[in-house]
Amino acid sequence: MASDQVTLLDFWPSPFGMRVRLALAEKGVKYEYTEEDLRNKSALLLQMNPVNKQIPVLVHNGKPVCESLIIVQYIDEVWKDSAPLLPSDPYQKAQARFWADFVDKKIYDLGRKIWSKKGEEQEAAKKDFIDSLKLMEGELGDKPYFGGETIGYVDIALVPFYSWFYAYETIGNFNIEAECPKLIAYCKSRRKNNMQRHVPFPVKKMFLCSE
Amino acid sequence: MASDQVTLLDFWPSPFGMRVRLALAEKGVKYEYTEEDLRNKSALLLQMNPVNKQIPVLVHNGKPVCESLIIVQYIDEVWKDSAPLLPSDPYQKAQARFWADFVDKKIYDLGRKIWSKKGEEQEAAKKDFIDSLKLMEGELGDKPYFGGETIGYVDIALVPFYSWFYAYETIGNFNIEAECPKLIAYCKSRRKNNMQRHVPFPVKKMFLCSE
Repeated sequence: MASDQVTLLDFWPSPFGMRVRLALAEKGVKYEYTEEDLRNKSALLLQMNPVNKQIPVLVHNGKPVCESLIIVQYIDEVWKDSAPLLPSDPYQKAQARFWADFVDKKIYDLGRKIWSKKGEEQEAAKKDFIDSLKLMEGELGDKPYFGGETIGYVDIALVPFYSWFYAYETIGNFNIEAECPKLIAYCKSRRKNNMQRHVPFPVKKMFLCSE
Repeated sequence: MASDQVTLLDFWPSPFGMRVRLALAEKGVKYEYTEEDLRNKSALLLQMNPVNKQIPVLVHNGKPVCESLIIVQYIDEVWKDSAPLLPSDPYQKAQARFWADFVDKKIYDLGRKIWSKKGEEQEAAKKDFIDSLKLMEGELGDKPYFGGETIGYVDIALVPFYSWFYAYETIGNFNIEAECPKLIAYCKSRRKNNMQRHVPFPVKKMFLCSE
């Protein structure tokens, strides 16, 4: 697919953008990276994602694909001859989709509450966040990746959020590693092996600027 | 697949459950329907969906699949020889996934706010709800179904919520049809043609019991 034109509209600290960067890197797809200023969104972003007006957007041969998990599935289906991200078995695929969806519904939402809420609401979010990570730790078990021996859809969905854990811990005054040592060891190892260039760590500059 | 054992754990007014019923009906899959009492969830439900403890759950040959849109994709992939629900083209598939996700993020969430909030919050939710439906109306255009000539993934994601529109309108004191006549004509027609047995209308008994 040498003639493919691929552009990613993104914003560097976005865990959703990181997912797409990781998927493209795993597939070896060359692309143009366009950094967006989210306070002054480009005409291209508004044209390519008129419904949600959000990054990331993958523009492939002029056509936009939006929403990070949908983009990762699209990448897996278009560049299907190398580095499969989703299993081919329908049941295994449904399980991978379940856990990636769990990351969106729990890890992202609760992380957001940790840095945007105070008092009881923040405490409840911290507890739910740790409980959710423990569930993911149980699902991971002793495997090197969620899907087995190679990086896959759930890893790509989850590991970008590791970039934000330092911010969550600092703002929420708690220690994730003390509660979920196996999951943090997994995140550290995955970041080192596969994701270093694409998952900056820690993302703290923007959200801890009052330190 | 005559030897398949398929059980659906469900709750009749659930639009998420309706999606699964519709997909199974389109594929002609025979299944056992098990009604759950959500105030007293069965041991089977807690065992089959220990993470979210929610219906619907499709139990296929003893193995559970959870989350309605994930179940519909699973059904489409397992019973792939009849009535395809998702397009085969990756770009069209991504577009279908985008709009089904939009239904979950907008139509469901805003509908819930309409019946659970009051005052300004309710008014804002009503406005966003209508704006979101208008976007879907634009996407539908003059096609009989979102995907073209036959029922597909986006129709299955959206139309079950039509069962709830009467409740939203009554509680929110507004008229959806006056704002989105084409979309309501589509919902009425789709329900009549494909979905009558599976999409009860209107769902009002439970949520308007104070009338």
